[in-house]
Parts: sequence; structure tokens; C-alpha cells
Amino acid sequence: MRNFVIFSRKGVTSPDFSLNDLPGSGGRMDLVCRCVNSALWISHGIRTDTNIYIVLNGPPDPPITIVFKGDSIKRVSPDERNIASWIKKAIAFAKGKEWTKVQNGILSSKKSFQDVIRELKDNPIYVLHENGKFLDEIEIKKNPVFVLGDHIGLPKKEELFVKRFNYERISLGKTSYLASHCITIMNYEMDKRRI
Amino acid sequence: MRNFVIFSRKGVTSPDFSLNDLPGSGGRMDLVCRCVNSALWISHGIRTDTNIYIVLNGPPDPPITIVFKGDSIKRVSPDERNIASWIKKAIAFAKGKEWTKVQNGILSSKKSFQDVIRELKDNPIYVLHENGKFLDEIEIKKNPVFVLGDHIGLPKKEELFVKRFNYERISLGKTSYLASHCITIMNYEMDKRRI
Repeated sequence: MRNFVIFSRKGVTSPDFSLNDLPGSGGRMDLVCRCVNSALWISHGIRTDTNIYIVLNGPPDPPITIVFKGDSIKRVSPDERNIASWIKKAIAFAKGKEWTKVQNGILSSKKSFQDVIRELKDNPIYVLHENGKFLDEIEIKKNPVFVLGDHIGLPKKEELFVKRFNYERISLGKTSYLASHCITIMNYEMDKRRI
Repeated sequence: MRNFVIFSRKGVTSPDFSLNDLPGSGGRMDLVCRCVNSALWISHGIRTDTNIYIVLNGPPDPPITIVFKGDSIKRVSPDERNIASWIKKAIAFAKGKEWTKVQNGILSSKKSFQDVIRELKDNPIYVLHENGKFLDEIEIKKNPVFVLGDHIGLPKKEELFVKRFNYERISLGKTSYLASHCITIMNYEMDKRRI
């Protein structure tokens, strides 16, 4: 099983953002939606071995975490607007610290980034970071958790928290990529390595 | 210079598609927009060494080709809706076989796929294809042109045409990827190889 965790600093935590303005009213929700697309879609299918957690830390009521599970999602299309419409619904379902089912394969909660990392802490954790070790020189272990920041990056405090666990920093080289592109590259690399 | 050429079978050729329904009314225009995103955006910047040609073959008036040039585009955002709004405008500008400037870095014309390939024929051409040679085993030459089909693939007739030129088939392995993901992977690979 592969897991991706996206820390979105500005992704809003109210369902009333506009589907016609994901970058502005959604707090770069377009970026979050493309991450879900990159994590789960292949040609004519869904990656049934992959989950993506999106941790929204924008106003008015952070944090909210939504997970899309590739083994069971249904009726979700790969375009930004459709994914965003499910995020809208999931935000409205986030009531407490426990996961609430939004629909098949989509769960929502008031969990924080640190709550999610605690839940996944028995897996090897890899933080995508420009100062990390180059991907080609790293052995990726089974059931990896890949942690990514948004366009502003992962806050120091959150990376310090991850350091308590089985953790390594990965770099994708000298070019700095969009979060969604990092996910596509990691999936490609894991496909090649059969992990 | 890197060039990507996307053959979209169903991408519509009238500007009256709805920005609220890119997959349906746009003929999978969401897919086309994600290809533009994957070709041109890096974190906090644009790939100034890259062009992407999108060849629209859907109703009512095919073909229309639009090119986004990384060295000069301005005021375009990486989200599907914004890219689609520029495609709408570019479709309205496509009048004859010559390129018409839509705005900085966006040109439009009634060129066909074969017209575009003829224009790029002095470069090495690589067609992404599941039965191609595996990427890791291919040397990519300078100024490559990468040709991709959409979710249905490149029509036989068009691939036969490409065969007249300096042409090779590339495969990305056993997994079949979305066109936009193929572009991200090719860009990553070219970055690593410094091509």
C-alpha cells in the first residue's frame, strides 16, 4: 500500500468555496485536487493500492483531513472540479476526531497533520524535500508514506514532528516540482521498482 | 527546446463549451488542460524551454491546433479552468492555416496534426506507446518532440504519418498512464538527463 499525505496551508475548511474559483476562494484547492488526480488515476482505472490524505489548514476551522482510498472510491472523476465537489462534501462531514464516511472510499475528520502521521507511523515515512537525498540513491521500503507540502512547503514544526518516527528526506533533483507532479513521479518510480 | 504534441480526438473546436463541464461539453478538455499544466509548470515558474501543441479534432470544425510557448506565456494560471479559458479564446482566433497570436505565448491555427508534425519534422520525434522501447533504454536526442494521444490513443493513420520522419516509440513500462502524467514523467526524465 502506498500513502501520500499533503499538507495544505491555505486549503479552506468551509464547504462554501466556489467551484468556479478553486485557486482563490478554495485556497489553492486546484493544487490539492491535482494531487488527488496524480495519486489515484492511471489510464482507464484507479490505483487500488494507494491512499491520499489531504490535510487542510486554511480558514475558518482548521484542521480537516480527508482521505481518498483507491481501493474503494466510486463515482469520482479525474478533473479538478469533480474532485473539488467531493472535497466540499467531505468538509461538511468533518465533525470530530474520528473518520466519518462521506461515500465509498472517501472519509473525513477533524484530524490534524500530526494525528495522521501518528496513524501511519508504523510505515516508513519519506518527506519530499529539496535538501533530501536523491531519489535514485534511496531504497524505498514497502508500504511507504510520502509527505508533501503545498506550494509554500511543509512547516518546520510539522517536519520536526515527523522526525520522531522512521523518516527520511527525498529529493527529486535540482528542479523544484509542483506537488502533484512530485506524486506522479513517485508513483512512476514505485511502479518501476514494483513497490 | 522540448516540444509536446497532444492529439485530442474529442476536444471540441467551438469556443462555446462550458468552463463548468470541461469533461462533457469540452470533449475531455480537462485532460488537455492538465497536459498543458504538466508540460509548462514547475514550482514558482514556467519551463521557458518547452512548447506544447494541442491538436483538437472534436466537433464542429476540426482541426484546430493551439500552441502554448513556455518562453513567453503570461497571465496563465496552472488550474484547469484558467487554461481552458485561454483555449476557448484561442479556438475563436483560429481562422486559417497560419498561426494567429492570441496573446503572448499562445498561438492558434487551423493546422492539422500532420501540419504540426511537418513543422517539427527536423527534430527527433518520439511517440509514447505501450509497445515502444522502454524509456530507460532509449537515448533521447536534443530538441525532442514527444507525441501523445489522449485517453483513446493516437489514431493509426497519424502514427503511420509520423513514421515517415526521424521517429521512435517510447514506452513508460507496464502501467498505462494518463497523458498528463506521461508528460510529467518525460519532463522529469529530461531534467535528470539535462536534455
